[in-house]
This record gives sequence, C-alpha cells and structure tokens, in this order.
Amino acid sequence: MKGIGTSTGISIGKAFLKIEPEIKIVKKHVDDPEKEILRLDNAIEESVKDIDDLYNHTLNTVGKEEADIFSAHLMILKDPEFIGQVKKEINNSSVNAEWAINKSVEDYSNLFATMEDEYIKERILDLKDVSKRLLFKLLNIKSVDLSELKEECIIVCVDLTPSDTAQMRRDKVLGFVTEQGGRTSHTAIMARTLEIPAVAGVSDITKKVKDGDTLIIDGEKGVVILNPTEKEIAEYKEKKKSYEEFVLKLKEMKGKPTLSKDGIKVEIAGNIGTPKDIDKVIENDGEGVGLYRTEFLYMDNDKLPTEDEQFKAYKVVAEKLQGKPLVIRTLDVGGDKEIPYLNLPKEMNPFLGYRAIRLCLDRKDIFKTQLRAILRASIYGNVKIMFPMVSNIAELREAKKILEEVKKELESKNIPFAKDIEVGIMVEIPSTAIQSDIFAKEVDFFSIGTNDLIQYTLAVDRGNQNISYLYSQYHPAVLRLINMTIKNGHKAGIWVGMCGEAAGDAKLIPLLLGMGLDEFSMSSSSILKARWTISKTSKKESEELVNKALNLSTIQDVEDLLNKINVE
Amino acid sequence: MKGIGTSTGISIGKAFLKIEPEIKIVKKHVDDPEKEILRLDNAIEESVKDIDDLYNHTLNTVGKEEADIFSAHLMILKDPEFIGQVKKEINNSSVNAEWAINKSVEDYSNLFATMEDEYIKERILDLKDVSKRLLFKLLNIKSVDLSELKEECIIVCVDLTPSDTAQMRRDKVLGFVTEQGGRTSHTAIMARTLEIPAVAGVSDITKKVKDGDTLIIDGEKGVVILNPTEKEIAEYKEKKKSYEEFVLKLKEMKGKPTLSKDGIKVEIAGNIGTPKDIDKVIENDGEGVGLYRTEFLYMDNDKLPTEDEQFKAYKVVAEKLQGKPLVIRTLDVGGDKEIPYLNLPKEMNPFLGYRAIRLCLDRKDIFKTQLRAILRASIYGNVKIMFPMVSNIAELREAKKILEEVKKELESKNIPFAKDIEVGIMVEIPSTAIQSDIFAKEVDFFSIGTNDLIQYTLAVDRGNQNISYLYSQYHPAVLRLINMTIKNGHKAGIWVGMCGEAAGDAKLIPLLLGMGLDEFSMSSSSILKARWTISKTSKKESEELVNKALNLSTIQDVEDLLNKINVE
Repeated sequence: MKGIGTSTGISIGKAFLKIEPEIKIVKKHVDDPEKEILRLDNAIEESVKDIDDLYNHTLNTVGKEEADIFSAHLMILKDPEFIGQVKKEINNSSVNAEWAINKSVEDYSNLFATMEDEYIKERILDLKDVSKRLLFKLLNIKSVDLSELKEECIIVCVDLTPSDTAQMRRDKVLGFVTEQGGRTSHTAIMARTLEIPAVAGVSDITKKVKDGDTLIIDGEKGVVILNPTEKEIAEYKEKKKSYEEFVLKLKEMKGKPTLSKDGIKVEIAGNIGTPKDIDKVIENDGEGVGLYRTEFLYMDNDKLPTEDEQFKAYKVVAEKLQGKPLVIRTLDVGGDKEIPYLNLPKEMNPFLGYRAIRLCLDRKDIFKTQLRAILRASIYGNVKIMFPMVSNIAELREAKKILEEVKKELESKNIPFAKDIEVGIMVEIPSTAIQSDIFAKEVDFFSIGTNDLIQYTLAVDRGNQNISYLYSQYHPAVLRLINMTIKNGHKAGIWVGMCGEAAGDAKLIPLLLGMGLDEFSMSSSSILKARWTISKTSKKESEELVNKALNLSTIQDVEDLLNKINVE
Repeated sequence: MKGIGTSTGISIGKAFLKIEPEIKIVKKHVDDPEKEILRLDNAIEESVKDIDDLYNHTLNTVGKEEADIFSAHLMILKDPEFIGQVKKEINNSSVNAEWAINKSVEDYSNLFATMEDEYIKERILDLKDVSKRLLFKLLNIKSVDLSELKEECIIVCVDLTPSDTAQMRRDKVLGFVTEQGGRTSHTAIMARTLEIPAVAGVSDITKKVKDGDTLIIDGEKGVVILNPTEKEIAEYKEKKKSYEEFVLKLKEMKGKPTLSKDGIKVEIAGNIGTPKDIDKVIENDGEGVGLYRTEFLYMDNDKLPTEDEQFKAYKVVAEKLQGKPLVIRTLDVGGDKEIPYLNLPKEMNPFLGYRAIRLCLDRKDIFKTQLRAILRASIYGNVKIMFPMVSNIAELREAKKILEEVKKELESKNIPFAKDIEVGIMVEIPSTAIQSDIFAKEVDFFSIGTNDLIQYTLAVDRGNQNISYLYSQYHPAVLRLINMTIKNGHKAGIWVGMCGEAAGDAKLIPLLLGMGLDEFSMSSSSILKARWTISKTSKKESEELVNKALNLSTIQDVEDLLNKINVE
C-alpha cells in the first residue's frame, strides 16, 4: 500500500489499531431543556478537568508550544459563542445536548468549509476535538487510551488528535500509519520531532489491518506492507540497517567544515521560527542561522510584542550562536495569517497582498520597534538584518532610511549596537531577481526565498492542491532567476544565500553549488545530509551541469538531468 | 475639488442635484403578519411591472447587456431565498415589511462584506437597488426621476444605479459628478459609452452643490470647480476647445496606416469581450483584434455553451473583420469568477490558482469543444488561437497535442478549417517571459499580457487598494521582461504583440515601439490616440530610450524619463 511518507525511517512491528468508537447521535426531544443544559454543564466541567491535566502533563513532558493546543481547547469550552449556540439550540428546539453539539459543530464547519485559511482550519480541528470529548462524556464512551500501550507497536488509525498524542506512551511507538493527513498534519509533525517513521494518507488502512498484524513501513517512500513475507522482512531489515548506518554516517559530519569534493568551502545554516529552535540547529551543527522568522512574536500574542520582549528573543539566539551569523528577517505577516489586533484587511489574494515590508513601511511604529530590538541585540553576536518581500528599489531605500533613523535615535541615547550591521534582502519576488544587478549595489547580501519566488514566477499557489503539480524548484525559469541572482550578487561583491526549502533539497544542491551559492539555510534536520551531499559533489563539475540545466525546456528535463547524478 | 476622472472631456453647465429621499425605517409590531405579507406581495408585483418596463425600454434604447441588469433584478424578486427570508422575518417576529426587508439586506451584506469577489459585490448592489425600489413602494416615496430632465445639466449625486440611468434623458446630460464609485462603477462605464465627461469619488459634493450652481468638470484630470470665476470659465472653454480639436485630429487618423515618424509600420488592434464589441473596433479603425476574450460565452450562461453557440460567436467577428487578424484566446476563467455550473473550487489565492489553460487541460471536454468551434470559424477570416496562463513548456505541448487531435477529428469528418492556423500564447507569467527563447521555437506568436505579468512579477494584486501603489508598468523589471520577450520572439522569427492595458498607454508606447513590439492591442477607444502617438515617435530614437530605461533603478526614474519625451 502507498501513502505519503511524512517522517523518514523504516519500522517493522505489530500493528496497534486505534479505532474510534462509533458515535451515533439521535435527535431526542427533551421536556426540560434546563435539565439538559445542566447535563451539558457537567460534561463541560469534567472535560475542563481532563484538559487541564493534559495541559500540565504536556507542558512538563513536551513543552509550551504543544501544551498551548490545550489552552485553545479550554478557550473553546469557556467561549460564550460556541457553548452559547449549543445551549440556545437546546433551549429553542428542546433537543438533547448531543444533537445540539453536533449541529453547532456542523454549522461552524460548513460556514468555514470553503476557507483555505490555515488558522481557521486549525480552529475547526480544535473544535471537533473538544466536541468529541464532550460527546464521549455525555454518551459515557471511553476512547482508546494510548497511555496504556504495553508492547512496542505501529499505531494504525484514521488520524491522531493532539488529545491522543499528549497521553501516548512514546517509548512504545515504532511508527504511525494514518488514513488522513499529510506532511503538515499534527501526527506528521510530531513523528518528525520524535524521529519515528510515519506514513499518511493510506486509504482504508484501518479496515484492512487487524490488531497484531505485522507491518513494515517506509517513512521515506511512503510504503506500507501488511503481513510481509519472510523475504520482504529480510529485505527491509537490510534497508533499515543501511538507513541507520546512513544516519550514523551523517552524524559523523558533525564538527566538520562544509567542503565540496574539490575543497570549496560553503556555509550551511538553519532556519528557525522560535528561539528554542536554535537548540536543534546547534545539535545538528549548523554554521549559523540563515533565516530567523520573527512572526511567532506577533502571532502568539494578543497585542504587539514590546521592544524588550523582542530584544530578549533575539539576544538569546545571538548568544547561543557564539559569534556565528544570525540573519533576522523583519516581520512577514499578511492577510492569510490571523493577527486580530493588527486588523489586517481580508484580501482576495493574500499572497499578492499587503504583507511583510509593505505592512512595515506603512506601520512605521511596528517596524521601528522591531529594528530597535534587533539593533540592541546585535552586540550579543553576529546579527544581520533582512527585509522580506521587497519588490522595488524604492522600498529598499525607504526601509534603509528608517533603519538609519533608528540608529540615530539609539546613538543619541547612547544605547550600543553593532554599527557595521549587515543589511540584506530576501530575493523572493521575480522583479527583485530580475533587477538583482541593481539591488546588489545597495545591500550587503541576498537570501533567495525559493518558496515564494517559485510561487510568483510560476503563478502557482503551492498550497492549492488542484495545481500543486505545476509548482517545482526544477522549473528552468526558476533556475535561471536563481543563477542570475547569484551571479549579480557576486559581480557586486556580496554573498548570496538561500533560505527556501530548495536549499535543503539533496537533488538540487549540486546545481546550487555549481551556481556558486555561498550559504544554504534549511530546516535543522536537513543540515547534516546537505553537508554530506556537498562533500560528495565537485563544484567544478557542477558548473558544467548548470550550463546544461539552464538551457533545458521542461521541469522533467531538469529532473532527468539531476537524477543522473549519483552522489552516493 | 478633486476626484477620479472616469470619462474624459470637459463640461461646463448647471448642476442638477439628484438627492435620494431619506428613508426612515421604524420597527413596528404588526398584529396580522399575513396581511403584512400581502402588502409586501403588492409592492413586489408593482416593482415587477416597473422593472419589466425598464427592461423593455433599455433593451430597445441601449441593448441587451444593460437590459440584463433588470433581468437580474427580476430574478431577485422571484428568488424564494431572499423574499422567503423577508417573509419569514415578518412571520416569526411580527414586524412590518420595511423592517424585514432592511434586516434581510443587512444580513446578506454583512455575510458577504469581507468578500472581494466582483460578482458577489455586484449581486449585493443589485439587491440594494431592488430593495430600495420595494421600500419606496411600501413607503409611498417617489424617487427623483431622470426621465424628466428639461434642461442640459451636469448630474450631481452620491452614485447612480442602473435603475436611475435606464430612464435618464441622455440628450440632456452634460456630465456626471458622483461621491462614490471609481473607474469600474456603473456610472463611469456608462459615461464612457456615451462619451460624456465624468468625475467620481468627490467627497460630500451633494452637500456642497445646490441645484442650478454652475460647474466645470474635467473628466481627464478629475477636477470639479464649483461656481467658477469668469476667468476659469474662459480658461476651461479654451481647454474644451483644444480637447475637441484633439478629438477631431484623432478622427483624422482613421483610414491611415500605423507608421512611426521614421516610417516603420506596426499594427494596432482592439481587445474585445463580446461579438458586438467588434463594431467599436471597426469604427475606430482597428487593424484587427489582438485579444478576443471568450469568457462571456461561459459567464452569461447557466450551462456550458455548445459548440454551435461558440462557432457563431467566433464566425460573426471573423467575418466582420474581413480578413484582418483575429486572435481568439481560449477560455480564461478561474476561482475569482463565479460560474456555478463549473463547480470551480473556492481558492485562497485565485490569481495563483486553477484557471485558464490549467482548467482546460484538466477539463478536456470543455477545451476540445472550444477548439472545434474556433477551427470551424477559422475559414471565415484570419483566425489565430492563443492559450492563456501557460507557465511551462509541457503545458504548451499538451495544449498543442489536443489541438492536433481536434484537427484530426474534423478532418476525418470532412469539416473544413484553416490548416495553417497560427497558434500562440499569452506571455503573462514571469517564467514564460524568462524562458521566451525556448517558447518562441514552439509557437507562431507571443502576445504579452501585461496586466497579469505585472501582478506576478511584482507580487501585487492590482485590485487590492492597500498596495496598488506598487503596481506599475513602469517598473524596470517589467520592462526587462517585455524587452526580453520581444527580442527572443524576433530571434526565432515570430511576431510579438501586447494585449494588456499597457499597450494603449501613450506614455509607454514610445518605449514599446523602441523595443520592437509588432502589434499593439488595446481597448477600441485608445486606438486612434495610439496611432497618433506612434506617428509622432521615431522608432530609431526610441531604441536609445530603451537602453536607458532598462538600466534605471526605480519606477519613478522610468516615469521621469518618459515624461521628458514630448510627442505633442
């Protein structure tokens, strides 16, 4: 059976089938709605207790970010809007609480069904998770509890909720196979964090597998084998062994410089989203941080973060890096991310909208606060500033002018900062790559943001499943823009990095090396593999590869060319 | 006072103030909801009669497209959803019909308030127009009727609805000044059709002007002068005269070939959206049609248009052009245009979504029907086929393969078509411009679609008011892509046109001429002015201008350069 590999590695083990008890909800007339509401209130009270426990347990065993999911659940139960609607339904229609809950959840889901907003999608999942808990309480149903796993097993299920995984005995889990979900589902993210293999999107797996069946899962290829033959088991044991050897080999790359086969030095850095991510970068021996996304400060908050809050978040990372470069990207939010207190306009095409530097140049108060915080943190390490979504030179000049104003303010107050702080831009809009010869004269570095650059260059929203087949880092036009940006940067004597996902793509790395990319910034888990790939690649030979690739016609042509290179 | 000029020309005349009677809606309890519903039904019946009359009047005096607005109004009154909701409100809450109507309209408006979908916005406007009519009936209020204008006047109002303009005595109207609206409002579109000057977006104008005040309006600059001095009147009379002389001079360009000052021939064509638009192209002496948008066939329909319906729509235009080129663009719809029967997915970023060739390659049935209709029409003129939104070579090859299949089918049935029909693409996605050297080898022509090309190259949704200042055809990166596309086309020996709005921009035309653009396709009303501009421009001198422009840094630099050229 085939699915989507969401966490690499191979596991062989017994299946543990987690099937949800079926909930049958029958509409019943209640004579006394007030009594029914009391019944609901009891269920809410019990659920609040459970969730409180889960919150504390998760906070202690995993961390704040995961625990916060349960804060969100508590908020739903205390939210007068949702619970109010359920109660209104009970009162107005004299129906049982189960029916009223189910109807309210459906109403909410339908209302938002067509929205693709990630935030809203997550809130709907939260709502369903909480409602299921309430229904279980009301119907006296016990859910399968993963805290009682006795033997090592591969969990097979439709999908797991945060409530499921919070209690799970992680030491007993060898892998996950789910019917739903993809690379960004909760189960997938958790599997990667725990370094456990996982495969998602395997249709009807819960109907095909019985408890105790033997399973093989390959979390890289997305393969699931049910009741494998002896031969298959032997074969996969071999694969598992060589995978584990490869993982060991990668670990040996730690502490070594990043050198191509022909001895050219480049830099591999990590992308981080919160200060605590820096530990993973250091653990994987990243040579710096090529992208520090600062949105978390604004999104995990109910008001604008203060200068001091920001300063602390930047300083801690700068210090931990002990002089290695730290590129801090200024705020990149827009209409697709819900930040209620910013009152961002709802937009028809948020990816082509009011966001990032566009918002910052308009809201100078926000921008200046962040710049002040970055400058103040700059004396604690090797900090660089990077502006996102710059589409024309005037924006860059305006942003630099504001930065100079902030520097003067700090100087006049005798607040220290690194006077020679480097200032660069993300190259993620086609116009900026096309004009990179001119931009290069006015910045200290470029960092190519491939995720957005590909979206705009190809006019493809990569989150849109109907057309995601058109989105590709192997498109020759994308490669031409990347190459043009690197060459123009070097002509002006500045360094050029890349912080999109393409930078960590082992297949593309030889081409990027050949183009002359100076810095590769990626998710921490890809760092060692990238260093290994580079160590097996000759830069000189790759330069010839570049000339070939840039003149190819189709995406497929480029993939064929790259598949021919064998760096193993 | 300043506003937005929405229809060029200068008018001097007396103000006619059209102020809407104020509607005060008071919530009243009704004892007998059924009687109230009867009252509503009477008002509906009278409104239906009025609208029927308006429909027939408009159909006879203006045309089907404008009359269709009233079909939409009738549909609302016959729509069980809206009227049903009003009646339900009367029944459930025992309120008066006025209150119920008002509440229902507000509910609908709020529900869709955040949507930027043009179609929904128009439906909401229709709903408000119809509801006002119902309220006037119920409250026995008479609206100011523009069918009784006695003297020539400039109409001053908040904004006009289709109901207002349908009855208007057009021969008495010298101009429009409105508080609301912009270039795409109903009033603006009608003013341009009637060639009457108009200015929109003038705050509080209805409060400042009295009936009979003298007004000067300049529909190009957006200027409104209230009670002008003698000197101002004299000055604007002069301006009006020279504007009218210029209009005459343009009319003299009719029947002449399009030649630059140094005698280089290029082609000026028109863009059309429906078959009847061709009359305007011919009237303005267009040398062909560079863009025939075929969406109207799909949008003005409640099911897919048949092959024969399409064939007729293409044939009539091909015949009227009498051998002049006709470029038919295949279907370009997507998630931002509501075509209920296509069940298009709701998308987060429709401009980066499932649309145009992406949809056609997926829905081959739709695509083949259209290609058959175009091929069959091809023997009635000089027809060319153009594919929109091509982002990679594989898509082009696939589209051409399907076209070959359709040709074979027609051949096997002995249905005639032009065997040598030219096949081209819109160059409107950055990747396609960047790879235009490769695309040029596989097509017969390019047509640069600047509207989309600018959007994607700069990552700016030009419909988004918060960032529209970033959208510019003068961005040096956009100019580089245009120049690259033209040069690559010529290297491969194919012709290159442009059908975005930039092609008709008098300021940009010298630059486009210098780049070597072969065909300029624009709205009919711009054709003669473009021909005049070209006749005053030396291609050779413009080539030097191009080299300068491509190396400038900012949008402003380019505008400054172009402003220095004086073609008058």
